[in-house]
This record gives sequence, C-alpha cells and structure tokens, in this order.
Amino acid sequence: MKIIEGGVTASKGFESASTEAGIKYKNRKDMAMIYSQTPCKAAGTFTTNIVKAAPVKWDQKIVKESEFAQAVVINAGIANACTGAEGLGYCEKTAQAVAEVLNVPTDAVLVASTGVIGMQLPIEKLENGIKAMVPNLDGSIESGTESAKAIMTTDTKKKEVAVQIEIGGKTVTVGGMCKGSGMIHPNMCTMLAFVTTDIAISKELLQEALSEDIKDTYNMISVDGDTSTNDTVLLLANGMAGNPEITEKNDDYKEFCKALNYVNETLAKKMAGDGEGCTALFEVKIVGAETKAQAVTLAKSVITSSLTKAAIFGHDANWGRILCAMGYSGAQFDPEKVDLYFESKAGKMQIIKDGVALDYSEEEATKILSEPEVTATADVKMGDATATAWGCDLTFDYVKINADYRS
Amino acid sequence: MKIIEGGVTASKGFESASTEAGIKYKNRKDMAMIYSQTPCKAAGTFTTNIVKAAPVKWDQKIVKESEFAQAVVINAGIANACTGAEGLGYCEKTAQAVAEVLNVPTDAVLVASTGVIGMQLPIEKLENGIKAMVPNLDGSIESGTESAKAIMTTDTKKKEVAVQIEIGGKTVTVGGMCKGSGMIHPNMCTMLAFVTTDIAISKELLQEALSEDIKDTYNMISVDGDTSTNDTVLLLANGMAGNPEITEKNDDYKEFCKALNYVNETLAKKMAGDGEGCTALFEVKIVGAETKAQAVTLAKSVITSSLTKAAIFGHDANWGRILCAMGYSGAQFDPEKVDLYFESKAGKMQIIKDGVALDYSEEEATKILSEPEVTATADVKMGDATATAWGCDLTFDYVKINADYRS
Repeated sequence: MKIIEGGVTASKGFESASTEAGIKYKNRKDMAMIYSQTPCKAAGTFTTNIVKAAPVKWDQKIVKESEFAQAVVINAGIANACTGAEGLGYCEKTAQAVAEVLNVPTDAVLVASTGVIGMQLPIEKLENGIKAMVPNLDGSIESGTESAKAIMTTDTKKKEVAVQIEIGGKTVTVGGMCKGSGMIHPNMCTMLAFVTTDIAISKELLQEALSEDIKDTYNMISVDGDTSTNDTVLLLANGMAGNPEITEKNDDYKEFCKALNYVNETLAKKMAGDGEGCTALFEVKIVGAETKAQAVTLAKSVITSSLTKAAIFGHDANWGRILCAMGYSGAQFDPEKVDLYFESKAGKMQIIKDGVALDYSEEEATKILSEPEVTATADVKMGDATATAWGCDLTFDYVKINADYRS
Repeated sequence: MKIIEGGVTASKGFESASTEAGIKYKNRKDMAMIYSQTPCKAAGTFTTNIVKAAPVKWDQKIVKESEFAQAVVINAGIANACTGAEGLGYCEKTAQAVAEVLNVPTDAVLVASTGVIGMQLPIEKLENGIKAMVPNLDGSIESGTESAKAIMTTDTKKKEVAVQIEIGGKTVTVGGMCKGSGMIHPNMCTMLAFVTTDIAISKELLQEALSEDIKDTYNMISVDGDTSTNDTVLLLANGMAGNPEITEKNDDYKEFCKALNYVNETLAKKMAGDGEGCTALFEVKIVGAETKAQAVTLAKSVITSSLTKAAIFGHDANWGRILCAMGYSGAQFDPEKVDLYFESKAGKMQIIKDGVALDYSEEEATKILSEPEVTATADVKMGDATATAWGCDLTFDYVKINADYRS
C-alpha cells in the first residue's frame, strides 16, 4: 500500500469543485461538490440519532434504492436538521439543480449538510452555488483540497488522505476527505466523510466493507459524547481502475479493506485530533480484554470522560480518573489487576501495576503528556482482545466555541 | 411539613464536630464527624462504579451486617480509592480510633472520604483529628453547619437542609448535608450525602425509603457524566422522636417518605447548582412520556450533553442541541411531535412546536436563559409519564478546576 497525495479527487474519474455560496459564513468557501465521470456504486453509514437531518434521510434512500450515484453536494453553515417537510424538500431541490446541470438522474445525487440545527437552507443560494461550481469541476489534487477546506465548520485543519494498492495488475486508489468529529459521539456540527475509489466491486461488498470498517475507525472516536443529527460516511466506487470486479471475499477484497481501513482510520484520527478547542490527540488502548466488545466499551468510556479529558489538557497524570472511567463503563474487570502506561514521543512509562500506583516521577509523566499525541494503554489481564479509541482533551476553547456557536 | 434551619444536627440526639486535620488542604477544616447519642438504624446507597473506594466497601458491610451504627467520620482531600489492602486497612483503623474514644463498637462506625484518587491516607493525621473532634461534639445548628463546610472540596457553598413533620403526635425531624455532585454522574471528587432523622422505623423500611427516593433525587443529577468511585448516601435513624415505630407502609411511612424526598431533592439540587465551575442550575423536565423509564432516559441525556451545557453557559437558546441529545438517548419518540419550552424567573416561552422552531424572539429567550436557575420542558406527547433531572452549565472554570486539580 502506497500513501499518495490528495483526497477525494485522487481516484480515477473523480472531480470536485467548491464555491463561496454565502450560506452563513462570510468570505470563505462553504459549498463543495464531488462528481464521478461514470456512475458509481454507493455505500453509506449514517447517524444512529433518532433525530435525523433531512440530508441523512435523503441519502439513506439513495444508497438503498438507487442503482447508482454520481454526485455529492455538501454545504457548511446550516445542518438542515429539525426542519420538517420543508427541509426535506430542499434536499430534493438541491439534487434536482445538480441533476439538471450535470444531466444525471435526481436520485443519483447525494447531499450533505453541516452547521446549525433548526434553520432552513437558503435554497436560492445553494442553487446559485451549484451553477457556479459545475463549470469548475476538476480532477486535480488542488481541487479536492479546496473542497476539503470548503466543508469545514469549527475545524481548524482540512482533512484528507489517499492510498494506492495493486489489484489484478491494476492500480486502485482510495481517497477521502472529512470534517468534524465522531460517528458515535460526534462534534456538534457533525462528522461528514466522503471516500472515493476507482475500484470495481459489487455494491453489496462495498457496503459490507464500509459497515465493518467504521466499527474500528469512525465509531471509535469521540470529541464530546454528542451524537449528531447529520453524521454521514459515503463511499463511492466508479470501477475506473479496470480491475476484475470483486464479487467475493477473496484476497483482493481483503487488500481493498486494508486500504479502506487506512483511509478511514487516518480521517477518523484527524477528526479526533482536531476536536473543538483541543490541543492533543488522546489515544486509549485496551489490551488483555476478554472480548472485543469489552475492550471497546472500556476504551470509549475513557476517551469520553470529561475529567480525564481535562486532565490531559493539564498534562496531569491523573490516572485515577482513567481507572474510574473504566469502572463506570459497564464492562466487567478486576480493578486490582489493571496495569496502566502512558506513552508519547517523549517516552513510555508504567504508572500503575495491579491497580495501585507505582512510585513514578510526576515530572517525567507530565513530560510524556505534554506532547500533541498521547497514548494511555490499560492491560486488564483477562484475555487477548484489544481495542483502540481516539479522543482529545477538554479545553477552555471547547467551552468558548460552544457557548457562543450561533452568534 | 415545616422547613427548619440546620442540617445533620437538626434531629434529636445528633451531634457533630469538625477540625483542621491537615490532610491535604491548608488553613481550613477538612474532617467532620456525626454522632448519635443512641444507636441508629443505618441505610445506605453507594456508587455503581466497579472501582469502589475503600470507605464504600467498609460502609457497605456495616450497613448490611451491623445491628446498628452510631458515628460517621468524613475526610476531604484524599478519596482513599485505588489504594488496595492498605487503604481498606485505614478504614478499619479510623473506625477503631473512633470506637475507642466514643466507646462504641468498631462496626458501628461509618467512614467516608472524598478527594484525589490513588493517594494513601495519612492515618496519624486522621487519628489526631478524631481525638480533637470528640471533645467538641455538639448538637447545635452551628456545629452541623461547620461540618457541612469541612467536607467541601471544589464545592463553593455548604449544603444542608432540614424539615419537620408530625407522626403519631410526635415531632419528627429529617435533616442532612452533602458535598459534590451526582450519584450516577458525580463530580470528580464525589458526592457524599448524610441524612439524619430521629424517627423510629424498621431498618428494612428505612433502607427501602432511601433506595426508592434516590431514583428521583441524587440519581437525577449530573455535573459531568463521571461516576465517582466514592459516592455514598447514608441515612441514620435513632428513634428519639418517640413516635410509634413504623414497621409497615402506612400513612406515617408515606409522610416520612415525603420529608425524606424534600431533604434529598433539596440536597441534590444544591449539588447540581454548585457543579464545578457552573453559573446556572439547569433543570430538564420531560412530560407526556409513555413510561417513567423513557422520561428518565430523555431527561438525563439532555442534562449530560456537553453541547447543551455549553449553550446554557452562553445563554444561547440552541434548542437543536436539546432535541439532538434526546435523539441519541436511546429512548424512542417522534421528533416531529416534540414541543419545547424554556422557563425561568424572567418568564416562560415556547421555542419549538411539533419539532420545528416557532418564530420566537432570540432576545427574549436569552433573557430567560440568563437567570441562575433555568428550566427546559419537553413534551413528547406519548402518554402521562414525567421525569425531572438537574444539571448545570459547562464553563471555562470547569476546565480550569479539572485541568489542574491535583496541583
């Protein structure tokens, strides 16, 4: 597997465009578009929140019922959630506007929105934005990067990644972009991820590859425990790599899954590491668990603990909060058997052994926790299962951003 | 029911004392003691965290196995959690020290600790503190108030309340004090609540009254979603009111339950309203639910949502976050039927009707949300069940307090 430059336009036949539609933000791009020169098989995973935004409802129908998809339109600033029949109507109007100028079926156009809940979309601005973008559709790396920037809300960095693998003697590319944080526990203004690939694969296997992979990637990150109304991951495959179509779970499928996992994990970690107001990516590894489910529950409980997150912000080796968060997770384990380690570029250190603190140096521990990426590893000594989750610290800026988000 | 002054010393025969033991804090009291002139029936409820502090293990045994209890010793500063066999040994030593000077059985002495996890208690300081307190045991209101202050950690206000009722022609008093926040989701440094009463009641009914009542009181508050290792509610009844002993669920029992509920709800709300760094008590009422369990799940999901809490700090009527938090709670409801209201001393206002925003005044809404106690009421229009939960806003000070708690 080769890591290459770019994101959604890295794969053959994919183009993108972006524009200043003036939906809510001033003086920046706030709309983006992805287009494939040929029809794509589409897979998707969506928020589990009962309150689903209109674009989620629209996309779920397309992914399930449409034969193919060929374009995605995304806006930042307004989430089109809690907007009733009027909001769902705007999804259709947006898709229709794209369908007309690109000459594709309306039900081949996916839509995604992120931003404030409860406001209606200014549909004319979106329609004008679409007209402005279509002539500028372009398969360059730069064009993809511009799109990755246009979909940002409180994100501070654009997020994209692409890789190449060989399948059946052909080069297959998988690339993607995303914004926000979290699938299970996303950031207020939603996680959106768009992954494109030129692989030839059956629709069923495309969806299965995605559905399996999100469990270890997007579903293992959290910024603040709030599951958005809009979370969406879309995976489009246009088959232009020319490999023999993958229709069974053979070695080619496994190779594709590895590439997809690299892209998804990279995007997921980028989101966690760019959580609102955060200063550090906080990785939590549970090892020695009895089952994968137990390891997942323990790891997620730690990355979502406000107290632990605040301690990470303070570079404070307050390990008691980590053990405490494991204890209320609902997973069974023996607290008096747990070993805990902190690790970063600055070093690795064992902090507790069999549930009790070692005589470690607080100074050394603080040094390890002062890096921009820190890992806590807990060994519960029950079996061989492991899980890794990614979160971030809780900071003054998180509060600042969210106390006056709408103003 | 008559609300009276005082707390743990309001009931007949209860005395308390407090002292500067120098355990961790400087220049303030950090130990307190409650003593009953006659043996008490004792009831208790404890943290559900698997990681249980040593005092929790000690008290669980006393409440379950001892015939009676007569004293409680509490320290602030060190939680005696994750301290292994050594920590549990200190509970016994503490109880022994009390037993010797007060001439009561060791297994009639309850202990409670709050503070940093993982450090061992300086047992000599505790023993000296006990010797200093015993000669000063005193049944005055002031003595109870001093104890309520001594058990504070990051609390900014002492928390106590007392009421009187008439049972069988006798005046019965129920009074209590607490510190911290939360039973299900407490503050880092633990919720501890101590309620005393002079009622005569069977031990079984005393425990049942407490176990039922915490579901609607302490279990309905949250500051930050982190369930402590030390949470403890103790209820001591010494029978000195002289009422005919309550041994069945008659009208007298119901009257006692009402008084107990008033005391517990008041203490619980005081904790939520004094959550770390908070500026407002945030009350969430769910009405029109199908079942009580559904209403509880919805209400708790809203008070624990970081985004909603940050919006309350910003006095921002960001109702989408409330609907979003209800949506990911796991409880079923139809988002397109929900009505939502904001209310405070400054007025009441309907914000959404059938899941969609009304044309309300943001200015007016901000005015309502700028009071120190604000209520959000959501009507899900499915039935008659209701639930109320209490939380607080998420502020810069919360982060500040928890980023450098140990330093």
